[in-house]
Amino acid sequence: MGLSGCMAPHLNTIATARTPSKNSTAEKLLVAAGELMIARNSPDVSLSEIAQQSGVNAALVKYHFGNKDGLLLALLARDAATEMTHLDYLMAQPIAPTAKLKLHIAGIIKAYHRSPYMNRLIHYLLHDSSDEAADEVSKFFIRPLLDFHRRLLAEGVAAGEFRQIDPVLFYTSLIGACDHLFSGRNAMARATGVGPVTDDVCRDYVAHVEAMVLGGMLKGSPGKKIS
Amino acid sequence: MGLSGCMAPHLNTIATARTPSKNSTAEKLLVAAGELMIARNSPDVSLSEIAQQSGVNAALVKYHFGNKDGLLLALLARDAATEMTHLDYLMAQPIAPTAKLKLHIAGIIKAYHRSPYMNRLIHYLLHDSSDEAADEVSKFFIRPLLDFHRRLLAEGVAAGEFRQIDPVLFYTSLIGACDHLFSGRNAMARATGVGPVTDDVCRDYVAHVEAMVLGGMLKGSPGKKIS
Repeated sequence: MGLSGCMAPHLNTIATARTPSKNSTAEKLLVAAGELMIARNSPDVSLSEIAQQSGVNAALVKYHFGNKDGLLLALLARDAATEMTHLDYLMAQPIAPTAKLKLHIAGIIKAYHRSPYMNRLIHYLLHDSSDEAADEVSKFFIRPLLDFHRRLLAEGVAAGEFRQIDPVLFYTSLIGACDHLFSGRNAMARATGVGPVTDDVCRDYVAHVEAMVLGGMLKGSPGKKIS
Repeated sequence: MGLSGCMAPHLNTIATARTPSKNSTAEKLLVAAGELMIARNSPDVSLSEIAQQSGVNAALVKYHFGNKDGLLLALLARDAATEMTHLDYLMAQPIAPTAKLKLHIAGIIKAYHRSPYMNRLIHYLLHDSSDEAADEVSKFFIRPLLDFHRRLLAEGVAAGEFRQIDPVLFYTSLIGACDHLFSGRNAMARATGVGPVTDDVCRDYVAHVEAMVLGGMLKGSPGKKIS
């Protein structure tokens, strides 16, 4: 699974870092960074903290990843690769497209919940890092996810389960809805006093998004004209 | 329409700034800041640029708004007040809840499209400014919007049009979906080569979100069990 060839040379180590046996130092650094972010519930961790947690010399970050953003990108690439493997596996299952979509909705929300830093890392690398980092995240995260939506929607239409839906608009609305549970929760808490995103909140939101995406909110048939 | 009383004194001028006749200097600064952000399609404008555009001495920003974030907050408060007036007007219309919801979905997306800086300003003030700014945005933007959803959902259930839906989850999914058209478009463009958010894209997205929220994507009835 090759990444872009137009990146700075050190970013090619992302592919290496995905294979622990090939480069255990890089892997140790990624594991340490992930653990620290989960423990702190924030992607704001310093290179020296990552080095201390991993027992690896901080200078080796530069050798393996170029800089901290290179390490963060490699971490997200590692997590994204895992998620994309899940998508391929899901797509290949001998179940109805609607069932795949339900599992997919739960999968996205659970992935964000499992790696609380993932959401903020994506936002940071897409908007507040470099153009190169944003391009990479687009390639290893957004493009395969959109491609999965494209195939799933086509399969659902072919099976007579889904109506025709534009994949780009579908991606935008579904990912926006899932993302906002996590990216918008602090602001919601300020405004309304709701608590953090617990397992129960996640479960409720999976059920809510599933119900909205599949059947909408109207009583009666989807095409019913009330107004 | 009072804002919080626990803010720094200069933020009380937000209320004043909303009434141009009461304070034309503050109003000039807000108009200039909004025009610059629209012209530049970015909230990254400097105080000296705002001063130059408005013909007002830069030192008066400090007098009226405390600092640049205070000015940005006042600008968003002004736009939010306009939107909230629209919500009150919409709620009072003698039309079906479903029709109100359709107008509301189009209204959110058009408001973001009309003020391209609004989305980024909300993100900035909620996440990258101060706790005080985030609290204010939550109060004048999120809380009244959620309150509108609460009332509209209740009205729709009472009218027999909507099924029971949790307002916090509903808010999260709808606002997340609408927001993502704008906040996620750059990343989508990188990944798939889609163009910017034009009037046509907005119109298509309004229709998409409306169809998803009301009827979902399944062919047949909303409650149909396929899997």
